[in-house]
Parts: sequence; C-alpha cells; structure tokens
Amino acid sequence: MADPRFYKKQGPFTLKELVSIGGEPIAGTYDDAVLIDDVASLEHAQAGQLTYCDNKKHIDHLAACQARAVLIAPALADVVPAHVMALIVKRPRRAFALMAQCFYPDSSLPQPMIAATAVIHPTATLGTGCCIDDYAIIGAGVSIGPSCHVGAHVCIGDGVQLGQGCRIEPFVNVQYALIGDFVTIQSGTKIGQAGFGFDMDESGFISIPQVGRVIIEDNVGIGANTTIDRGSGADTVIGAGSRIDNLVQIAHNVVLGKNCVLVAQVGIAGSTCLGNFVIAAGQVGIADHLKIGDGVRIAAQSGLMRDVEAGKTIAGSPAIAVRDWHRQTVMLQRLSNERRKQL
Amino acid sequence: MADPRFYKKQGPFTLKELVSIGGEPIAGTYDDAVLIDDVASLEHAQAGQLTYCDNKKHIDHLAACQARAVLIAPALADVVPAHVMALIVKRPRRAFALMAQCFYPDSSLPQPMIAATAVIHPTATLGTGCCIDDYAIIGAGVSIGPSCHVGAHVCIGDGVQLGQGCRIEPFVNVQYALIGDFVTIQSGTKIGQAGFGFDMDESGFISIPQVGRVIIEDNVGIGANTTIDRGSGADTVIGAGSRIDNLVQIAHNVVLGKNCVLVAQVGIAGSTCLGNFVIAAGQVGIADHLKIGDGVRIAAQSGLMRDVEAGKTIAGSPAIAVRDWHRQTVMLQRLSNERRKQL
Amino acid sequence: MADPRFYKKQGPFTLKELVSIGGEPIAGTYDDAVLIDDVASLEHAQAGQLTYCDNKKHIDHLAACQARAVLIAPALADVVPAHVMALIVKRPRRAFALMAQCFYPDSSLPQPMIAATAVIHPTATLGTGCCIDDYAIIGAGVSIGPSCHVGAHVCIGDGVQLGQGCRIEPFVNVQYALIGDFVTIQSGTKIGQAGFGFDMDESGFISIPQVGRVIIEDNVGIGANTTIDRGSGADTVIGAGSRIDNLVQIAHNVVLGKNCVLVAQVGIAGSTCLGNFVIAAGQVGIADHLKIGDGVRIAAQSGLMRDVEAGKTIAGSPAIAVRDWHRQTVMLQRLSNERRKQL
Repeated sequence: MADPRFYKKQGPFTLKELVSIGGEPIAGTYDDAVLIDDVASLEHAQAGQLTYCDNKKHIDHLAACQARAVLIAPALADVVPAHVMALIVKRPRRAFALMAQCFYPDSSLPQPMIAATAVIHPTATLGTGCCIDDYAIIGAGVSIGPSCHVGAHVCIGDGVQLGQGCRIEPFVNVQYALIGDFVTIQSGTKIGQAGFGFDMDESGFISIPQVGRVIIEDNVGIGANTTIDRGSGADTVIGAGSRIDNLVQIAHNVVLGKNCVLVAQVGIAGSTCLGNFVIAAGQVGIADHLKIGDGVRIAAQSGLMRDVEAGKTIAGSPAIAVRDWHRQTVMLQRLSNERRKQL
Repeated sequence: MADPRFYKKQGPFTLKELVSIGGEPIAGTYDDAVLIDDVASLEHAQAGQLTYCDNKKHIDHLAACQARAVLIAPALADVVPAHVMALIVKRPRRAFALMAQCFYPDSSLPQPMIAATAVIHPTATLGTGCCIDDYAIIGAGVSIGPSCHVGAHVCIGDGVQLGQGCRIEPFVNVQYALIGDFVTIQSGTKIGQAGFGFDMDESGFISIPQVGRVIIEDNVGIGANTTIDRGSGADTVIGAGSRIDNLVQIAHNVVLGKNCVLVAQVGIAGSTCLGNFVIAAGQVGIADHLKIGDGVRIAAQSGLMRDVEAGKTIAGSPAIAVRDWHRQTVMLQRLSNERRKQL
Repeated sequence: MADPRFYKKQGPFTLKELVSIGGEPIAGTYDDAVLIDDVASLEHAQAGQLTYCDNKKHIDHLAACQARAVLIAPALADVVPAHVMALIVKRPRRAFALMAQCFYPDSSLPQPMIAATAVIHPTATLGTGCCIDDYAIIGAGVSIGPSCHVGAHVCIGDGVQLGQGCRIEPFVNVQYALIGDFVTIQSGTKIGQAGFGFDMDESGFISIPQVGRVIIEDNVGIGANTTIDRGSGADTVIGAGSRIDNLVQIAHNVVLGKNCVLVAQVGIAGSTCLGNFVIAAGQVGIADHLKIGDGVRIAAQSGLMRDVEAGKTIAGSPAIAVRDWHRQTVMLQRLSNERRKQL
C-alpha cells in the first residue's frame, strides 16, 4: 500500500464500480460485488487488491499472485490461477491506469491560494481557482488560465500564456512561450532560453538574435531538468499529447508532432521535425534539420544523421533499420570469434 | 515577424545603414535607399525583409523566396532570382547576425534595479547599473562589476567575482568561481560544486577535499542546466569566447582553450585539456586526463579515450579518424549484406 | 595553495600528526618532526607540501616534484627522488584524502541558523544545530534530523524525512522521499517527481498514478542537476554509500545496491536493479527491468540491454564482455584496412 505519509488512498470500490470506468468492455466470471481495497503491481499485490498483466514475460508471477483480481489480456486469460478473479480486457494496462486513478486521484488540483511571497506583476491575469506557491514570480502581461498550479520558486517570464489546468513544478523557468491546456512541467525544467545560435570564424563568435517562441500544445507532459530552447525566428513546437522525460534537450526550431515520446536524455538538434507518435528511447541523439516520419521508433542510444521514413524502426549510431543493426551486431561477434580461432 | 508580446523590433533601416554594419565589404547592384522592415530565415522571409543564404543545400528555397534582399555568398550569387536583391558577401551568416542585432538588440541590459527581496551580504560590492532580480542571494565578499544582470533566484556564493556586463539567468548557482566580462549563464546551470573525487575500496568511499576554483574567462556563453565542477586543487577553466550548450557536464580540473564549442549533452571527464577552437558535437563523451589539440572537431556521440592531435576530425566510440569511421560504417553494412546473400 | 577567498586552510601539521590519521601503517625513513604546510597534486605541489602518487603513469612527475613528502605505493617507493621524503603506504590516495581533510575540513557543518525568509510549516520538526538558508521551503510533517544544512531555495515536500548531518544544496527539490544520515545532494537535483509511467495507444496517453517513494540510504552522495524519479508503487532505492555524479537519470523503481558509483550522464531505465559496488562510467545507458550483479564494471557510453552476472566488466552498445569489445574494435580496424588495400 502506498505510504500514507505521502498519499491519501480512496476506496474501497466494488468491481462493478471499477469495471464501469475501465474504458472498454471487460469480460470474465468475476463477482461484481467484491470490494477492492487498493491497486498494485503483479509482484507486489496483496489480498483484496487489483493488479494487471499484459505481457507473457510476467506470467510466472501470476501463479504466486495474491491479488483478488487481475486485469488480463484475452490471450493470457487461461493462465490466471483459480484463486484470482480474471477481468479479461483488451488493454489491461490502460484499464488499470484508469482504475488506479480512482484510488489515487491526481493531487495536482490544489486548493486555490496565492502565497503572500509570490511576486505577481500587476498586469498579469490569473484565472479562477489557481494556486500560486511561495516565491513564484509571474511577469508582466502573463496570462494564466483557471485551475493552474504554479509551484514554489517558479519563474514565468513576461508575456507568457498558460491555458487551464496546467501544473508547473518548482524551479521551472518559462520564457517566450505559449502553453496550452493541461500541460505538466516537472521540477527544474527550463523553457524558452535562447538557442545555440551564432556565427563563428577564427575571430570568435557573434550571436544571432533568437526571436522565436516555444509553443506547447495541450496535454503535454514534460519531465524534470529538461531544456527546450525557443525558436530562432520560427517557433519550437511540442505537439499535443507528447510526453517528454527528464534531462531531454530540445534545440531551437525543433517541431514535435502529436503524441511523441522522448525518453530520458534524448537530444534533438536544431530545426529537426518529428511526425506524430514518434518514439525515441533513452539517450537517442538526432542531428539537425532532419525529417522523422510518423510512427518512427528509435532504439536507445541511436544516433540519427538522416531523414527517416514513416513507420520505420531504427537503431545504432549511425542509425539503420533495426533488422540490419541486429544482423551487424551478430555478424561482428561471429567474425570476431572466427578470427580468434584462426589465430 | 517576431511576436510583439515578447520582442520589440527596431527599424526599419535602409540597406545603406545595414550594409555599413555588416562587418565586411558587400557587393552587388542593390538599391541603397530601400527600407528593410525585418529579418527572417530564407524559408520564412516576407516582403520587405532581409534574409541570408550560405549553403548550396538551401538554394531551392531561393526561387520562391519573398524577401526584399538576401545576403549571399559569392559562389551562390548567380542563383538569386531577379525579384530579390543580392547582397554579395563573404560571410553571409555573420553579416546577417550583425544586421539582425540592429532589429533585435539584446535585451540583456536591463534597467538598473535592486529588488527589495534580494538578499545581498553587506560585504558584497556591486558596480553601477546592475539589475538584481527578486530572491537573488549574493554572498559575503562577492564582487560584481558594472552593468551585470543577476536574475531571479540566482545564488552567488561567498567570494565569487563577476566582471562587467554579465548576465546570470534564474536558478543559476555559482560558487568558488572567478568570472570575467560579458559572460552569459543560462537558467539552471550549476557552477562550482565539489567534483566527483573520492578514494574507494571494499569498505566504501572517502571524499577528497575539492579546494580549487572555476575560472570563466571573458565572453563565454553557457547554456541551461549545465554543470561545471570546481577544480580539486588546480582550477577548472573555461577559455575566453567559448560556447557551451545545455545539459553539458564539465568535471573538475578540465581546461577548455579559447573559443571552444560544446554542443548539448557533451560530457568531459576530470583533468582533460582542450586546445583552442575545439568543437564537440552533441552527446560526445571525453575520458579523463586527455589532451585534445587545437581545432579538433568531434562528431556527435563520439567517445574519446585517447589524446587527439591538433586539427583532426574524429568520430565513433571509441573515436577514430572520421574517414576511417565512415569506411568502417560502410564496410560493416557491405559485409552484412554479403553474408546475408551467402545464406 | 587553495584560494583564501574561498578556503580556510588549517595547519601546519607535523608528519607525525598526519601519519597518525592516515588510516593504515606508513613506512619509510621520513622525519617525524617535519612541518607540512599544505597538500597538492603531484604536478602542483610546492616546497613544504605533501602529495601522493599511486600510479606508474605519473612517475615522470616525481623527478621534478617539489613536494616535501610524498605518499607512495610500495611498488613505486624506489623511484622517489632523494629530495622528497617517501611515506610508503598501501593506499596512498586514501591516506592523502584523510590528511587533506585535516587541512581543509568540510565546511558543511555551518553555524546553526534559521533564515527569516525560510517558509517552514508549523508541523515540520527540525533537529538541533540545523542551518536553514534563505527562501528554503519545508512542508507539512517534514522531519529533519540534527545538524542538517538545507541550502537556499531548497524545497522539501510534505512528509519527507531526513536523517542527521545531511547537506542539501540550493535549488534541490525533494518530494515523497525518506533520506538517511549524512546524505549530500548537490545543487539543482530533483528527487521524487512522478516517473515516466503511462499507457499509450492511438488515442493518446493515460497516466498511471505513481504512488511509490524514493529511499536514500546513509552516506549517499548525489551530484548536481541529477533526477531520481519516485517509485510507481514499489520504491526507488539508492543503497548506502553510493556516489552519483551530475546529470544522472534514475527512473522509477530502480534499486541501487550499496556503494555503487554512477558517473555523469548515466541513465538507468525503470525497475532495473544494480547489486553492490557496481560502477557505471560516464554516459552509460541501462535498459529497464535488468539485473546487474555485484561488482559489475561498465565502460563509458556502454548500452546494456541484458542482465549482467556479478563481477563482469562490459563495454559497447550493445554491451558485451570488455575483452570481446576490444577484439571487435581492433578487428574492425584491421578488416577496414585490408579491404582498403585490396581496392
């Protein structure tokens, strides 16, 4: 169970109540009236709790599972032991997420409050129900929609706009940015600083004025200590629904499509455009001025130096089709072994 | 045009005025008296605006270009269509940077002001014309030169010295550092913390006192959320004019020469020395105690484990001469294809 | 000598005093009564100072060394020139660390003080001798042990617990965490934010509530601008004595054993477990749900996609045994050269 020092659990809920918010039809011979106390992972679930399993790899945990009920993919339903009720559903993880949200509703809707130590410019406007924490600084002409939470020590620069329901965690700096609805930015992330733009020759460097913006569309989530530079003239754009992890670098004029996923420590160089639903795993690097098509998947630590067509899965540095990459990896090992034997 | 919420544009300027500040002779049959309203990239420039083109790759954009005038390299001058005035110049990008600075002068020279909430130690000294924003903390014995901008929430530790015209953005922490003139440090960067120095054996770790400094010479620019550790006994040094991007790690005792460029997410391990004009592209890693000669260029994601002679261009992990790296990359693909056909 | 602007040096000390705190027997024909003024590296040591040498690579510096005495490994004792006293000791670096701590005692035990601008919730409890700097924010129910230093602008979230003697540097954010004794967290590090957990399909993303904690055991040291996500249900755990460098990413549910070392820019994906004394060099990436055994050593920039048995040393991306990796690297160069000659 979640530590009550930190989390206030709701419930219990009947399976009937939970099934009704699972987002899709749920089959199985479970007992509607059973009370569920809590949610937990397959490994950690205890008596009276609900869990899920959507992956053959984890089947071994099912036998010993102590949960009262398990959300399970149809293909795995047969493996559920008799002592656990099977809730058969196409997307167990999604249903679990929705049900878990009942037990642990997001605490991001804080009580409306404006800390006495917040420095709010007289020309800034705040929607109803906002919470502005201690030592936050909100600049001239800023517009913040209703029900936003601006955390402690956050700096919102002059002219920035936030939609409704945004959560900005401590130590975030936002400048030169227009931000949509329900955007979450975790602690320490810096948005809108000048990009890495200059002309260089033997006499040194001259900065090119960076006069674009950062546009963050609705429902974007951004992790901690990430950096997103503003555009140089055009804008840097983060498409609606995209999820960006910690310590990610996004350079000036980069455009992300909708629902992209950038895992921790990814770096994207200037003016590169990603389509929709592009997924880049951890520590991927993408060179500047590239076009990465819709649905491209990029393996961890890959280095992209060329455009990538929609739908491809790529790996390696320089990145190639993932099949080719696997083949090269295996071949290299074999060649090395062959040579070793010959010596 | 830049969003007036964020930027105050100057101008218009005549071509005569602009050409006079381009930094070098500009040829062509343009009309001196033409008024230019704004600057923009080749792709985005509109009627009445100035743009530049210094790369054959972008020639295609020239035909459709709506700009009034284009700064263009001599070799490309013939390609400029008749409806755009050609300003022929050796370094179009540099001339563009200088002209763009007329339209968008750096807003970093703020009005002199000391926020009431700033905590400034009585023994600290500030030059004339400084701006110290809300919640900044300036320690004992700190010396700050004239016309510096210390952003909101910045912490300047005891004894630190800043020259004139520095800009320190929000959430920067500077300790044990001597900083020259016209240095810019973007939001969230941490300078002067103790380096990763300890002795370890089976019983655990013992810290080695880190009693050096960070020396940042004149005209250095440092990005956001970067970390620069102080020296262990000797100093960590960032040479004059160097440009460091976001999320870069510089370990204790590293010495950068003048005018080095470190792109985002580069990491340099302890006591490594870079010469002048070294360029490391994104996500490069450089091992400890190496010597990297003047003018070395390092491709993105490379991993350096050995010294590199001046003037070399290297790539790969472990890094080798870039030609060898290309050859290996191509060979690997060919070998893989050959083996595949044989099966 | 360390810059007196920043460091207050103690001493001088006699060799007798210093030898007594070296942690192990020290042999040699040195003069007990000699006064030592300061400590310095082999390259920088001046007359009257103490240095150390534990590596054959640095022998060349010994001849020109100006130090009064050198802590030296038994195998190297013969090389010490006559003008330098040789203190022969099994672990010169460890002895040096201990002696250096006499000259430069850790300044982390500040004067007890609670800044008037600190915002401390009435239900928070502070041990004796704590120093709480300006603009720190300490939430409801927080418990802080004796002799802790909470730096300027630090945010300690509701319910967090710290043991004794912890040092938390400026701009650290700690939420949902239980922290042991003598833990140091450098500037800008973010601990306890929600991990990267969501379900995704073509319609977008649904967040999975992240209701675990971060457990940081005793004597852990964490660098600057690092990010450690809280557990999703189980906890994220940093084992006692571990040292984590700058800009490291640790995802939800990761478990580090005791005395692990993570060098700068390492990233560890969700639910991966490291044993004790695992060492990951800079920019290493480790995939999710892996088990890395005790004492595993991982070369810089390696990418781990599989479990690793205890005691192995690995390198490359994908990571393999370090010997195989060296062999492949050499073979690739040879093959490339052979092919080139054939053409």
